[in-house]
Amino acid sequence: MQKLQQLYAGKAKSVFATDDQDYVVLSFRDDTSAFDGERIEQLSRKGEVNNKFNAFIMEQLGKAGIPTHFEKLLNANEALVKNMKMIPVECVVRNVASGSLVRRLGVEDGMELNPPVFEFFLKNDALHDPMVNEFHIATFGWATDEQVQRMKALTFEVNQVLKKLFADAGMILVDYKLEFGVFKGEIYLGDEFSPDGCRLWDAETRKKLDKDRFRQGLGGVIEAYEEVAQRIGVPL
Amino acid sequence: MQKLQQLYAGKAKSVFATDDQDYVVLSFRDDTSAFDGERIEQLSRKGEVNNKFNAFIMEQLGKAGIPTHFEKLLNANEALVKNMKMIPVECVVRNVASGSLVRRLGVEDGMELNPPVFEFFLKNDALHDPMVNEFHIATFGWATDEQVQRMKALTFEVNQVLKKLFADAGMILVDYKLEFGVFKGEIYLGDEFSPDGCRLWDAETRKKLDKDRFRQGLGGVIEAYEEVAQRIGVPL
Ligand SMILES: Nc1ncnc2c1ncn2[C@@H]1O[C@H](COP(=O)(O)OP(=O)(O)O)[C@@H](O)[C@H]1O
Ligand SMILES: Nc1ncnc2c1ncn2[C@@H]1O[C@H](COP(=O)(O)OP(=O)(O)O)[C@@H](O)[C@H]1O
Ligand SMILES: [Mg+2]
Ligand SMILES: [Mg+2]
Repeated sequence: MQKLQQLYAGKAKSVFATDDQDYVVLSFRDDTSAFDGERIEQLSRKGEVNNKFNAFIMEQLGKAGIPTHFEKLLNANEALVKNMKMIPVECVVRNVASGSLVRRLGVEDGMELNPPVFEFFLKNDALHDPMVNEFHIATFGWATDEQVQRMKALTFEVNQVLKKLFADAGMILVDYKLEFGVFKGEIYLGDEFSPDGCRLWDAETRKKLDKDRFRQGLGGVIEAYEEVAQRIGVPL
Repeated sequence: MQKLQQLYAGKAKSVFATDDQDYVVLSFRDDTSAFDGERIEQLSRKGEVNNKFNAFIMEQLGKAGIPTHFEKLLNANEALVKNMKMIPVECVVRNVASGSLVRRLGVEDGMELNPPVFEFFLKNDALHDPMVNEFHIATFGWATDEQVQRMKALTFEVNQVLKKLFADAGMILVDYKLEFGVFKGEIYLGDEFSPDGCRLWDAETRKKLDKDRFRQGLGGVIEAYEEVAQRIGVPL
């Protein structure tokens, strides 16, 4: 497998073509962004930690029967993944209220959400990723109804797997964002699962172990990511 | 039926008890508010026009099989309605993109939405009526799943009836907001349907004939409401 030209660079990862058009290289950079890209900083080791973290999680999800784009780790910062047509909506599940939900609905930060809340957001930085629903997705043609139902079901399945995985390591999976894509007509989990796109709290102290440390200027961002990785057994 | 003490005063209407606890008097004032109550003005005749407009529409909807709270007109500004426990979510259907949808999703004002878009909003001025979905409604207990499905279905049924009613009078029903309540265990359409809570455009000229005239300072607000009333045959 040969890595060819860059196809796309997002805020934190770059995508490269390979000599097999079914696969692309996902390259995790140290760039760390917040507030829809308004603030960007380099955090040393982040690319590597997230790449290895994501590889570990995608493998766990794959074992649990969730179809993912992940093929294999290539090196410290890169993974080989299926070349997908990404669906431009983000799927969010919230087990505990925090972040934008608290601001939007005026509920208490840390409140348990039972049953968990599911939300769709349009992936659009210029519009600040607005919340959308299934009608917007259908009317504007971002995904078919069948794809919407599949993404929703898979996002909840991921919750079952990862809530337990993190709980077993003394952490609360507060919320997370997933992105899906289409490969050969089927929906697969794409993008990444890392502390960049979820909230993880220590179950005892409620210490934040995710990107909120960056958003809120709490420091020790990568140290926290590494602590999570070590606790769940990601080989770094 | 005797009108007793005021129970509640909203931004545009007041609710009074009667000697029958199953019924309340809905009293339409001239107060006209915009931007979640930030701007309030008195527009002379508005209470009367909206009361009569609403009575006419509720009767049409009732004839079409939609359960409504409307019992009868009492006088120029008041109607007798079922005393309901209101559900704190607003149900919106959009046939054409305008207003907050255009701002949120960056789509063109006036774009036809096919199929129409349905949205729930939490009725909460302090939070600026945030958009919510069925998961928020369930988790925070604002309505049961059964009530949610019923409200959604009724809101679309209203679209079938009113799109035609306004089209037959040369107007486009761009969008509208409904509120529902519970009376003796059943869901009924409550609140009001008037140009205060919908967008209506002249089908030829696209002239705005609704509360956007007030929001945008276009003038001729009540004259436009009266024109709509006259076109669809509301006895004023
Ligand atoms: N399997 C895949 N195939 C193609 N593109 C992908 C795949 N997985 C993720 N992507 C895309 O790679 C891009 C780069 O990631 P990222 O830096 O997170 O971008 P963004 O700033 O858009 O969030 C994203 O647009 C993401 O949707
Ligand atoms: N049938 C009904 N029974 C009880 N309350 C009602 C009924 N219909 C409408 N209401 C409530 O009457 C209140 C007054 O109306 P309005 O002035 O529009 O208030 P708001 O400022 O809350 O929108 C609203 O809170 C509305 O929900
Ligand atoms: Mg991203
Ligand atoms: Mg109102």
